[in-house]
Amino acid sequence: MAKLEGKALVAQGGGPTAVVNQSVVGVTLEARRFAQVSHVYGALHGVNGIINENMVDLTEATVANLEAMAVTPSSGLLSTRDKPDEAYCKQIFEVCKAHGIRFFFYCGGNDSADTCRIVNQQAAENNYDLRVIHVPKTIDNDLKVTDHCPGYGSAAKFVAQAFAGANLDNRAIPGVYIGVVMGRHAGFLTAAAALARKYPDDGPHLIYLPERAINKEKFLDDVTDALEQYGRCVIAVSEGIVDEKGEAIASQFTGGEKDSHGNVQLSGTGALGDLLAGWIKEQKLTKRVRADTLGYLQRSFLGCVSDVDQREARAVGEKAVYYAVRHGRDGSVAIKRTGDYAVSYFLTPLETVARHATEMPDAFINETGNGVTEAFLQYARPLAGAMPELERLDALAVEKIMPK
Amino acid sequence: MAKLEGKALVAQGGGPTAVVNQSVVGVTLEARRFAQVSHVYGALHGVNGIINENMVDLTEATVANLEAMAVTPSSGLLSTRDKPDEAYCKQIFEVCKAHGIRFFFYCGGNDSADTCRIVNQQAAENNYDLRVIHVPKTIDNDLKVTDHCPGYGSAAKFVAQAFAGANLDNRAIPGVYIGVVMGRHAGFLTAAAALARKYPDDGPHLIYLPERAINKEKFLDDVTDALEQYGRCVIAVSEGIVDEKGEAIASQFTGGEKDSHGNVQLSGTGALGDLLAGWIKEQKLTKRVRADTLGYLQRSFLGCVSDVDQREARAVGEKAVYYAVRHGRDGSVAIKRTGDYAVSYFLTPLETVARHATEMPDAFINETGNGVTEAFLQYARPLAGAMPELERLDALAVEKIMPK
Repeated sequence: MAKLEGKALVAQGGGPTAVVNQSVVGVTLEARRFAQVSHVYGALHGVNGIINENMVDLTEATVANLEAMAVTPSSGLLSTRDKPDEAYCKQIFEVCKAHGIRFFFYCGGNDSADTCRIVNQQAAENNYDLRVIHVPKTIDNDLKVTDHCPGYGSAAKFVAQAFAGANLDNRAIPGVYIGVVMGRHAGFLTAAAALARKYPDDGPHLIYLPERAINKEKFLDDVTDALEQYGRCVIAVSEGIVDEKGEAIASQFTGGEKDSHGNVQLSGTGALGDLLAGWIKEQKLTKRVRADTLGYLQRSFLGCVSDVDQREARAVGEKAVYYAVRHGRDGSVAIKRTGDYAVSYFLTPLETVARHATEMPDAFINETGNGVTEAFLQYARPLAGAMPELERLDALAVEKIMPK
Repeated sequence: MAKLEGKALVAQGGGPTAVVNQSVVGVTLEARRFAQVSHVYGALHGVNGIINENMVDLTEATVANLEAMAVTPSSGLLSTRDKPDEAYCKQIFEVCKAHGIRFFFYCGGNDSADTCRIVNQQAAENNYDLRVIHVPKTIDNDLKVTDHCPGYGSAAKFVAQAFAGANLDNRAIPGVYIGVVMGRHAGFLTAAAALARKYPDDGPHLIYLPERAINKEKFLDDVTDALEQYGRCVIAVSEGIVDEKGEAIASQFTGGEKDSHGNVQLSGTGALGDLLAGWIKEQKLTKRVRADTLGYLQRSFLGCVSDVDQREARAVGEKAVYYAVRHGRDGSVAIKRTGDYAVSYFLTPLETVARHATEMPDAFINETGNGVTEAFLQYARPLAGAMPELERLDALAVEKIMPK
């Protein structure tokens, strides 16, 4: 097989993560090492930047600049919410062909994998050699085949540190604290709220995931029980929790705004947290009820990155180049967990990852549907990496002497 | 003067901070060094733990335990929202007297300083020698006399890192982003959103503080201008922003719940952010509008501490002991800024800090009332300490070649 020669193109789609720039820089620096790759282009704002030829030449970006961008959260190449159809993908292909692009690397979730699949197919149908690699990226951790997704570990670390702090705060001034976490259909990120529990009575005491239906009665019963047991209650709730009919609890309260994918807006509003807090206040279960929506900080906060996640995000970018340039393959880079904890990488066909997402396995959710299992903690801990320490005061009580 | 001999008591009141435990540990470890201090007691849940004799003996807490607690956010001794009146303070005094407590250290804001003042006065009126020291602590930075308050720097760092990340996210997927920041009457913490701006077009592009009245028309005009100039807009808003009549904008939307101090609930609800987002959506200024309320993470997030703040919080605790035990004085520990950047400490009378809070000086707010000045950045930067790095990609545009 003759070596395929031409340009490489890299882009990012969907919601940013804390480590997606590592993947882009992994692709860029590795692709620059191959003589058969004449230029490495970066499309701005994802596929939108391809069809509008809004691209930059990464071949002369300094290593200093790229390495500094690699440790910066969010998408350095900027992103898009466009979800290409066949006609859109045709345009992508046409631009690739016109620019002599032979290697296309797209960082994103299952929608981005589908874009890769269609573009790859169209190139084949037009007898144009175009290697297409999907580079996995999502804080939701909902991609099929792979053990986990780059981007999840850092977001999980943020959520764990947020709830560890909220738990300390709630212990200092008791009441009910509700924290709403991102994750439309998969509860992995919400579940991560449990990762920084240290003492037996540490919160979150209740965790509600999109994988288990919830209703007002059960929710209030759970909160009542927790208040009785702990004198306070910290609750982690996924923004995507649904009722028995499968309808998002939040969807009643956002005025029905939908994004370009037809999804109801869940993030960027405090409505769900306020709704749940309202339920508790209505029943007067306790005086102090507070709800925070962790919001965009979960994926973009400057200065909260999992080392493991960072290394793996870099690795999937580098691996993508080897698969495409050295081995002439198409596919999605996936991670296999080996040992405790180590990983290896492999390439899976684009159609195995495209379109359909995955959810939390049953083994990760407790029987009462309001918490996580030890198996989940074992799964997620290495991904979030090292946590900052926390400790309670350990001192003897002073004897009471005042007359009553 | 004969040496005053007896026990010391330390407690924390009001909202926790990331570094208040440093102050408690500073008091505890320093007080333990003095032979005339027989025991160091800690009251649980602030003044509430004093009147209920809910206290622990810190004299035998290990240094390992205390140092680990010192770097843990929130109040290790737990806190309270109780705001003591004369009768309540009388009980505090009675418990101190019964237990032979001669040195009382209370970490908190201006309400806690007032408690110190009243207890100190009652002891004097009863001819009981009780040294009372207020140890400053607040994320709002609104104490009088002192240059700044321990607790503020770490919260400012969190807010700065949150907005730096939100700005990167907003740049990747443009629209309007609103982040609601704590601070009922003082805008210092909201203003800190500007600390991590690096590039000339970095957000926050608009900053609204409680010190300047705002109305819907001006707000929408500002947002329109920013969208025109930047194609996107990041907004930092204090939860305490008020209209021309001085009424909190948020107060219309929280069902009027009030805390034990008679204040309307501002934190722990997403209502203000959703209200402002609604104004923008109503006018269809842009398609994508998101609002986050940073919430309790600002004061409790595990793993975001300013080194400078941490050192100073420790120092005010240690100084408190020297003033009380070695010098037999009462007062509030204050910080003086010397050089660029260095500090010294001094003791100010309790009545100069008690009850009344301070606000942002005019020199820190821009003329149009929607941003901060260079003077503010100079003031706040050293307090928040070192920020994580961030960098944009620097690469040349690729020439467009597609036929139009």
